[in-house]
Amino acid sequence: MSSADLKTLVLIRHGQSAWNLENRFTGWWDVDLTELGVAEARAAGELMAAKGLDFDCCFTSLQTRAIKTLNLALEAMGRLWLPVEKDWRLNERHYGGLTGLDKAETAARHGDEQVKIWRRSFDIPPPPLEPGSAFDLSADRRYAGIAVPATESLKDTIARVLPYFQARIAPELAAGRRVLISAHGNSLRALVKHLSGISDADITGLEIPTGQPIVFRLDNDLRPVERYYLSER
Amino acid sequence: MSSADLKTLVLIRHGQSAWNLENRFTGWWDVDLTELGVAEARAAGELMAAKGLDFDCCFTSLQTRAIKTLNLALEAMGRLWLPVEKDWRLNERHYGGLTGLDKAETAARHGDEQVKIWRRSFDIPPPPLEPGSAFDLSADRRYAGIAVPATESLKDTIARVLPYFQARIAPELAAGRRVLISAHGNSLRALVKHLSGISDADITGLEIPTGQPIVFRLDNDLRPVERYYLSER
Repeated sequence: MSSADLKTLVLIRHGQSAWNLENRFTGWWDVDLTELGVAEARAAGELMAAKGLDFDCCFTSLQTRAIKTLNLALEAMGRLWLPVEKDWRLNERHYGGLTGLDKAETAARHGDEQVKIWRRSFDIPPPPLEPGSAFDLSADRRYAGIAVPATESLKDTIARVLPYFQARIAPELAAGRRVLISAHGNSLRALVKHLSGISDADITGLEIPTGQPIVFRLDNDLRPVERYYLSER
Repeated sequence: MSSADLKTLVLIRHGQSAWNLENRFTGWWDVDLTELGVAEARAAGELMAAKGLDFDCCFTSLQTRAIKTLNLALEAMGRLWLPVEKDWRLNERHYGGLTGLDKAETAARHGDEQVKIWRRSFDIPPPPLEPGSAFDLSADRRYAGIAVPATESLKDTIARVLPYFQARIAPELAAGRRVLISAHGNSLRALVKHLSGISDADITGLEIPTGQPIVFRLDNDLRPVERYYLSER
């Protein structure tokens, strides 16, 4: 198949957030971008425009850092007018009882080995958020009608990202529309794992850098012919 | 009917644009906000939050200045996650051959009286945009599938705003959802005329200030019980 027939899907992880900077587990907590994060988002849009990438529709999570990254990138591309669908199923993995802790606090409380297991295991979730926690979002209006998880493993995250991708995003790609997704480290891992067929063991080690557009060129069965960081082309 | 049963609709005209400042006819041309316009948009969001206004869904045009005003206001309210529908039928009135001219140039070219007629008449459109004009948007991808007008009277503008309102916005209001619309002087005049039953002769004199939320409280038939500037309450 010729290159012109390939489908285009671009993934961006949001720019640096305040808690990326402070090295704290964030998950579903709604932390804003830092100034660097804002600059990363604009630079991503400028890079996409400079490389001739363009889109027909966009998807993002219900979290400010991903939505703002998308808006800033689209503004830099002169594409604020594109349709955007926001859905909780593209949210970051829920870090349960680790939410709000920095990496040193977590290690002091639970031990280095245990933290490594939670961060690197495919299917072991951190302890659940305690009821009454300041980070409990189950009464947040944004999640009305949704069973807000108390914690998630990467496997749990995949289990809600993929049905959304199949239901809402894959049909757009199949119809030839170019899709931009602005989301989070783990919701994007879920997509990369699915598209590139990465094993359960390997996906937890895949780091997705902030603000770097990842380009997929897909065949008609939405299998990747290419996957690359736009900054490397 | 009790106040709690009333429907909430808020209209905002985008903050000051570069061509508002230069006093040039803008219409469909995609001019960005000035720094003042950005500040107006943020202040509108802060005011709405401070007054306890909240929303379930949002509508805007395909023009950067209205989309950006909405995004900035939503960000100030902590509501970037709300669904947003963008549609060309909320665009500004198309000013035809006047697009890009400042008010002095227009008067010098066409005479003060003629300009007053175009600005104040309900159904006389300005001369059409000349073919090949630098302001011709008929090949802009954003308007693919749409017969981009060459000029519009206020009456023409109303003829595309109202069917959109009836089809997409009125059902949301009827279902009890609180709606925020960020749009333009004339697309908002179309809505105010319809909702408040203002005559053809009077509507052209109604000035809609930039960045000032206009609150409608509507009964079950979407007739206004109240209409006020939020800054005056």
